[in-house]
Amino acid sequence: MKTQTLLNYARDEWYAASTSLAEVQSAVTGETIAVTGSAGLDFAAMLDHARRVGGPALRRMTFHERAHMLKALGLAIMARKEELYELSWQTGATRTDGWIDIEGGAGTLFSFSSKGRRELPNSRILVDGNVEMLSRHGSFVGQHVFTPLQGVALHINAFNFPVWGMLEKLGPTLLAGVPAIVKPASSTGYVAEHAFRIMIESGILPPGALQLIMGGVGDLFEHLTLQDVVSFTGSAQTAMKLQSHPVIARESVRFIAERDSLNASVLGPDAAPGTPEFDLFVKEVAREMTVKAGQKCTAIRRAMAPAAHIDALEEALRQRLAKVRIGDPREEGVTMGALASRAQLASVRAAVTELTRSARIVAGDPDASPVAGNGAFISPILLRTDDPWGSPAVHDVEAFGPVSTIMPYRDLADAVALANRGMGSLALSLFTYDSAVAEEFVLGAGAYHGRMMILDRTSAKESTGHGSPLPVLVHGGPGRAGGGEEMGGVRGVTHYMQRTALQGAPEMLSRVVRQWLPGAAKAEGEIHPFRKRISELEIGYTLKTASRIVTLEDIEHFAEFTGDNFYAHMDEEAARANPIFDGRVAHGYLILSFAAGLFVDPAPGPVLANYGLEGLRFLTPLYPGDAMRVELTVKTRSVRNEEMGEVRWAVFVFNQKDEVVASYDLLTMNRP
Amino acid sequence: MKTQTLLNYARDEWYAASTSLAEVQSAVTGETIAVTGSAGLDFAAMLDHARRVGGPALRRMTFHERAHMLKALGLAIMARKEELYELSWQTGATRTDGWIDIEGGAGTLFSFSSKGRRELPNSRILVDGNVEMLSRHGSFVGQHVFTPLQGVALHINAFNFPVWGMLEKLGPTLLAGVPAIVKPASSTGYVAEHAFRIMIESGILPPGALQLIMGGVGDLFEHLTLQDVVSFTGSAQTAMKLQSHPVIARESVRFIAERDSLNASVLGPDAAPGTPEFDLFVKEVAREMTVKAGQKCTAIRRAMAPAAHIDALEEALRQRLAKVRIGDPREEGVTMGALASRAQLASVRAAVTELTRSARIVAGDPDASPVAGNGAFISPILLRTDDPWGSPAVHDVEAFGPVSTIMPYRDLADAVALANRGMGSLALSLFTYDSAVAEEFVLGAGAYHGRMMILDRTSAKESTGHGSPLPVLVHGGPGRAGGGEEMGGVRGVTHYMQRTALQGAPEMLSRVVRQWLPGAAKAEGEIHPFRKRISELEIGYTLKTASRIVTLEDIEHFAEFTGDNFYAHMDEEAARANPIFDGRVAHGYLILSFAAGLFVDPAPGPVLANYGLEGLRFLTPLYPGDAMRVELTVKTRSVRNEEMGEVRWAVFVFNQKDEVVASYDLLTMNRP
Repeated sequence: MKTQTLLNYARDEWYAASTSLAEVQSAVTGETIAVTGSAGLDFAAMLDHARRVGGPALRRMTFHERAHMLKALGLAIMARKEELYELSWQTGATRTDGWIDIEGGAGTLFSFSSKGRRELPNSRILVDGNVEMLSRHGSFVGQHVFTPLQGVALHINAFNFPVWGMLEKLGPTLLAGVPAIVKPASSTGYVAEHAFRIMIESGILPPGALQLIMGGVGDLFEHLTLQDVVSFTGSAQTAMKLQSHPVIARESVRFIAERDSLNASVLGPDAAPGTPEFDLFVKEVAREMTVKAGQKCTAIRRAMAPAAHIDALEEALRQRLAKVRIGDPREEGVTMGALASRAQLASVRAAVTELTRSARIVAGDPDASPVAGNGAFISPILLRTDDPWGSPAVHDVEAFGPVSTIMPYRDLADAVALANRGMGSLALSLFTYDSAVAEEFVLGAGAYHGRMMILDRTSAKESTGHGSPLPVLVHGGPGRAGGGEEMGGVRGVTHYMQRTALQGAPEMLSRVVRQWLPGAAKAEGEIHPFRKRISELEIGYTLKTASRIVTLEDIEHFAEFTGDNFYAHMDEEAARANPIFDGRVAHGYLILSFAAGLFVDPAPGPVLANYGLEGLRFLTPLYPGDAMRVELTVKTRSVRNEEMGEVRWAVFVFNQKDEVVASYDLLTMNRP
Repeated sequence: MKTQTLLNYARDEWYAASTSLAEVQSAVTGETIAVTGSAGLDFAAMLDHARRVGGPALRRMTFHERAHMLKALGLAIMARKEELYELSWQTGATRTDGWIDIEGGAGTLFSFSSKGRRELPNSRILVDGNVEMLSRHGSFVGQHVFTPLQGVALHINAFNFPVWGMLEKLGPTLLAGVPAIVKPASSTGYVAEHAFRIMIESGILPPGALQLIMGGVGDLFEHLTLQDVVSFTGSAQTAMKLQSHPVIARESVRFIAERDSLNASVLGPDAAPGTPEFDLFVKEVAREMTVKAGQKCTAIRRAMAPAAHIDALEEALRQRLAKVRIGDPREEGVTMGALASRAQLASVRAAVTELTRSARIVAGDPDASPVAGNGAFISPILLRTDDPWGSPAVHDVEAFGPVSTIMPYRDLADAVALANRGMGSLALSLFTYDSAVAEEFVLGAGAYHGRMMILDRTSAKESTGHGSPLPVLVHGGPGRAGGGEEMGGVRGVTHYMQRTALQGAPEMLSRVVRQWLPGAAKAEGEIHPFRKRISELEIGYTLKTASRIVTLEDIEHFAEFTGDNFYAHMDEEAARANPIFDGRVAHGYLILSFAAGLFVDPAPGPVLANYGLEGLRFLTPLYPGDAMRVELTVKTRSVRNEEMGEVRWAVFVFNQKDEVVASYDLLTMNRP
């Protein structure tokens, strides 16, 4: 492979640095395969370009348009994935490791695309929570909204997953409507640069949406403002240095850190040798040690077992690790590749040396070279301490490679305390079939861990594993893990948006958020709303129906017809004895059914189906002889495709005193 | 008034410092009224006490129990409020200013209490969002939860609202289940100390829940960990200094900053003199200048008007400000009291001097002493600049007193840019009756402001005003405002909790979160669930009903009875032409009604009423001749009082092929 010069992408142009270049070596062969650098880039101009060109273009799109864009980007990556696998093995990654990185990365874009289309509106403002009543008569209300930040997201990525690490940050950022500047790690940047290139070449993104820095970030931090976000993944030391940059506190720049942590896995007190959970635990610890040669921020660094089972655990793990085949990751049958670089190898060896002051090696040899040549290979190293409270290093020193320490615990409280002794982690797992153990663990350890997997015989087969962050779940953790949160579906999108509490008249706020809010005007018209296509349905357009009396005969007939003879409808004396009612009342479902009878326009037309209902509350009992009428108001509308879209209707049922009998949101599928 | 020694409260004991005492003067008379200090406190021991004693006690309580505690604390404050008013006037506060502080503070506790009982579960884990499906067959799922942080909340408060400022932080903290250490500002600490004393003397709080530091915090920061939160209100300078403490980045300590900002208010282009919005704007700017003598972090510092109306605005404001009566706040008719201290007076005068380099004074005299004696009195100062883009000081220098600058804007985009030129604020207001103006403002300025009030003739009467943070809305803002977020109902509670993504089998996670989750076991029993009181209803307890056929006659009869003759139910040809259905289908409300007929046990018993329904989705059409059956499962249960409580049931309606026809949550009121 010939040495390649990696390119930056600034202000919609590719740019090759010509000075201060660094060489990058193959993890497998040790050969120099690329040179990289960012000298000469104008970082202030890059920020400015993103703010002036990329941001406005992205903010003009709706959430759904941006979600479609993410899907297209994912498909572009998948269409050229073999090019990425071809580069990926040079990082030491097996095909399985590459799959996590490349297809896992594209999958993250697909997940955010799907969440964006299903959970976000087809508009530009995200409404957060319900209207808050701020006044007695309802003329002044509150509504929280999210709008996109108007700055730039600076993504500083780790070396271990060059594609996934880039895409898991880009998914929520672009969905939020914020442009990004990506800075990959140098040792595996050639894979990230190629994945980035695929996205640019796809032509899917608007100008200014993405830029790439293949070296140092120079004076970039000096130019950050309150509208920017720094999202960092990597070592605690670098994170602390960056977070302490004076601009961060001065401008209150959002800083999302995801730092390596000393994740633990715990064998439950019930999971003795011979139980399925014991076997699952052994398998998972060994797997986490060897996948990606243990270079995962979520990998299990500390494995805890009841003191009675620690010998059995050691033996089982030794046997399992003995089967690992280390070698060139392209070779058939190889189950563990190389570390990402010789520098990484040196760092892992140094950390193991530190660990051996507190623990002893029971499997593997850190100094051996399991594969000939200049590759960064190391065998899995299992350590053991029998005095975990007297061995601080095992809780504080991370060897970012195929290294893990086993240790005994006395009882459940001790296990919780040991897990928390890591001072904050990304992922904790617990192998138990006893829900009381699990509950005690969640209450005792939840606050110290960002993700917590509880595995047992029923869930293991379909489990995604201890070490896999998932786009629909938050990834991040407190304390040593950096205190940040990424992904988690829409939660991650809001990290790139500002929440603002809007206050004002319901009518005014309705128009701003393009959603009918309680108290806003209800415009009536000649045409029944069921006769209008979505594009013709104005927010707030309202049908006020005629009134009908609900008789005792109606109630009795409904009871007989449906079989719902609940005493509150059928037995005057028992109904009166009920603390809520003053006598027999109409069935809630009778009210809903009669309401539909009042508002439905029966002939074929734009309304296709009632597909659901939300937030129904029965607020005032409806007694025999009471009248009911309905107001049906267009709350939101969203075109999904050329065939159909959704309309959400605010429905209020009133009695003859204009008291609200019931209120709910009705959901229909309509022609666009 | 004799000089009082203010006491600290550490490890459930009152403690008087005897060295390094500072004197505190009355803002009105200048006399020394108290001495205060914290020398000799063992800060590490205080943290330890909160963690070992206060935290566990609070975490043993449920959200509802803690919500009741907050209400009791609010009532204790209200019962002794006159004692607080008696102290409050010494800070320069009028009765109205004191009302905001004292009764507004108690009201914040009531609001959090109410939110806690209505929006949080009566348990110890807060479930966040829906189950996330992580596997094809559903044996491995995800569920986000919040659990209380296991550390301490350190509250560092500002001088302007000694009671409210303490309580708005304590509300969400205690509701979350986290103990607090309160550090009031020194100049008005005697009011905070007394309010704190009232809470302690009420005996409502468990030991270790609250502690008080009446002076410097010494080495306290050195002992903070990942489980602690610092919540700071005050100047940007102090915030930056604290946030840059190395422990913050090292331990990822949560740091919530609420810093003074240069809030703006904008007169809309439509709001010419003579419109109601013009008059409302004048009134609000003047009010914000004088309430609490302008010492509000949300006060309007920059008032912007269309260039054509700036002279009219100046004139109207001068007239209005001329009516302000400054004096001893106890005196009848006084509308503005003193600044909080002579030091504050000096600082306001210095800031006005800086402002006069960019703007000219058009009303008031900063050097005059409007009230004789040694009080910290100053008149309202109105400044004006006609070149806002050439006057950086008006956007960057805050005079934390009754000081505001008016300035013209060219057009709406210019107004948005000027508002955002404050580089982040707590509160922005806009006076307009034009929703297009409001929408452009929200899209353009939302990301720079934490709260945005849009006022017009319809909402003004009931408005709570530009400067009032409300417990149900977020308070905080980006950039200069500190980047933090407080209050906002349950949003503020989660600042003191850790979000964790749980993964595992639905059955396991159900038991941990004490809520039935889709896929978990459905235990059946002999007894119909409607025959059980809440205390007897196990989570997951399920009724599986018999099956019934839904005939075409049923559909036609239902249509005739209810009047719902929608074509999809009544017209075979039209129904077939619909892209969703293969022919006539049963009404959704018929399915709901028949479902109730299948699962309801009619006789009087523990079930009192069906009060609502959530998340209904019709998933598979039910055609004439199809069968339907129901599974009704206890999802959550919550006892409200001795009379009743709520049960949430997961309801699934299946057809004869076991496809889900409909799913929803049914809400009933039951006997406990």
